[in-house]
Amino acid sequence: MTKPSPSELAFVPFVSVENMMRLVHSVGIEAMLEGLAAYIEDDFRRWEKFDKTPRVASHSDVGVIELMPTSDGEAYGFKYVNGHPKNTKEGLQTVTAFGLLADVYTGYPVLLTEMTILTALRTAATSAMVAKHLAPKGATCMAMIGNGAQSEFQATAMKVLCGIDTLRLYDVDPKATEKLVRNLTGRGFNIIACNTPEEAIEGAQFITTCTADKQNATILTDNMVGAGVHINAIGGDCPGKTELHKDILERSDVFVEYPPQTRVEGEIQQMPESFAVTEMWEVITGAKPGRTGDRQITLFDGVGFAIEDFSALRFIRDRIKGTDYFQDLDMLADPDDPRDLFGMLLRSA
Amino acid sequence: MTKPSPSELAFVPFVSVENMMRLVHSVGIEAMLEGLAAYIEDDFRRWEKFDKTPRVASHSDVGVIELMPTSDGEAYGFKYVNGHPKNTKEGLQTVTAFGLLADVYTGYPVLLTEMTILTALRTAATSAMVAKHLAPKGATCMAMIGNGAQSEFQATAMKVLCGIDTLRLYDVDPKATEKLVRNLTGRGFNIIACNTPEEAIEGAQFITTCTADKQNATILTDNMVGAGVHINAIGGDCPGKTELHKDILERSDVFVEYPPQTRVEGEIQQMPESFAVTEMWEVITGAKPGRTGDRQITLFDGVGFAIEDFSALRFIRDRIKGTDYFQDLDMLADPDDPRDLFGMLLRSA
Repeated sequence: MTKPSPSELAFVPFVSVENMMRLVHSVGIEAMLEGLAAYIEDDFRRWEKFDKTPRVASHSDVGVIELMPTSDGEAYGFKYVNGHPKNTKEGLQTVTAFGLLADVYTGYPVLLTEMTILTALRTAATSAMVAKHLAPKGATCMAMIGNGAQSEFQATAMKVLCGIDTLRLYDVDPKATEKLVRNLTGRGFNIIACNTPEEAIEGAQFITTCTADKQNATILTDNMVGAGVHINAIGGDCPGKTELHKDILERSDVFVEYPPQTRVEGEIQQMPESFAVTEMWEVITGAKPGRTGDRQITLFDGVGFAIEDFSALRFIRDRIKGTDYFQDLDMLADPDDPRDLFGMLLRSA
Repeated sequence: MTKPSPSELAFVPFVSVENMMRLVHSVGIEAMLEGLAAYIEDDFRRWEKFDKTPRVASHSDVGVIELMPTSDGEAYGFKYVNGHPKNTKEGLQTVTAFGLLADVYTGYPVLLTEMTILTALRTAATSAMVAKHLAPKGATCMAMIGNGAQSEFQATAMKVLCGIDTLRLYDVDPKATEKLVRNLTGRGFNIIACNTPEEAIEGAQFITTCTADKQNATILTDNMVGAGVHINAIGGDCPGKTELHKDILERSDVFVEYPPQTRVEGEIQQMPESFAVTEMWEVITGAKPGRTGDRQITLFDGVGFAIEDFSALRFIRDRIKGTDYFQDLDMLADPDDPRDLFGMLLRSA
């Protein structure tokens, strides 16, 4: 491999929203979810190698802006992501994101990319990769409570990775459910729109809760959840934002990404610090058991961790090579003599 | 003011390196340093309004990558910046940076910009703004130890804001000094290249140390520093990276940006946690005295704080309005129905 020259390094490949959509279609949505899940699983396997920190959050009355950095010692990645539940009513996205990958050796960025779409994909890929490890035997039906922007991604990833073929849908807003039905009709699902969460859960072995209100809601109460299910709780991801009644947590075996972050942001924020959880990477490496019985309730308290974004950034970096799904951004000043930044500025006049 | 539509908000103004240089020349380097210093001083005056956190650093053997976020409740800004002293030898910049400003109310980014050049400018503007408050009376001569990428910016800012007209230069590498002389000749300075740091310091009322080695160096020893000077120590900005002998710190009144960060990264990392420092914002608001006597040694232990980048981002946002010094970047996914991200993706096929 030829070493890139400094002036080549001064340009950062940028994947716009349009190019991300082109890339997704060139790979295929399902193949992309599968590929992302494989990258994420790889990084969970080498979890101990990563420099980990809870995300750095800046809260306001209406939302949160977060930075999620991590590094494996060779590459460094971070994501900028906001969470503003009130945005939807104003015609804006609840979550928008972009991310960056850099070379640890030089500190130079090597990829800048939109991550609104990519976050939806990686969140779904993570949920499904986790569900694959914790699924009840022969599970094919998923209840989906919350049919917003993340829901179709979740459903598709669960189909690809866990063999889901039946969806039972509920949302407080029937229009959201209609939208989901419209988007997923003809994409290999048997879809049942339900009038209550209770109805949605009937006969489902997987339950995904995926709502966006920033409040302690109770989407699921204890009496709604039977034995032998896997709950994929991804909407509770912020202090003061939970979806499950705590009695469900008591009855479940809870699996998490990174406990220092999940104890602040996840469903388990309702529980004492001593509440036992299993880190998902330990299940994946075989260090700890995942599902141990047919009647066990497994619960993935997913909040989204920086390593999943890192995996997604790696995936994009690898997939855009040799394509035109990016543009070069003139983002890094590059004087011929690195000490002569001022001279470069003067000469540009 | 008309509220921008969601689709307008989906594009983020991006200031490339080339556009930053065009902007600097259109404003003028000296006017830009003056403008940046005014923005930074304004933000120091309202210091208490900011959400402050030490920067989030990811260290490796060869350097550091840092994220520096802050918010004043209306805008949120962060900078990505690396520090790799070994880069220079490989033809790369020691420091490269970019930054982003976002709207706290929506969480949407409103500006992405190169910050390698902008960081050099804001660092110099900060030093000079601080020096203006702490300067000995009638000071016109500055010693500059370390003549690298930051040095001409420092000198120019000190000229504009503090009335410096004489520069006494020293660098371990005479080529660096030659470069500085070349760049600043004809720009209003009386320039004296010196053979030793001791010679450089002779008769200087300002001493700027601005070296890049990642090690505990001793650029200044106690016997070199006389009474009545202001020391602007900006090279020591990393754990294990200092420039001054601790005896100088004992004799000086030390002024800092944000103590929780400076105690880890600044010259005062050599001192116990109880070592007294004055926060610069308190001097600027008049809450605490700055220079109190002619023979006092004032020392600005500058490490660079997120609020200075925030000020710089605000400045750029305000200055690019109505210009063509930016391009719109397709960085935020913007479905017509915010909940229909998947549908937008499907329809783009």
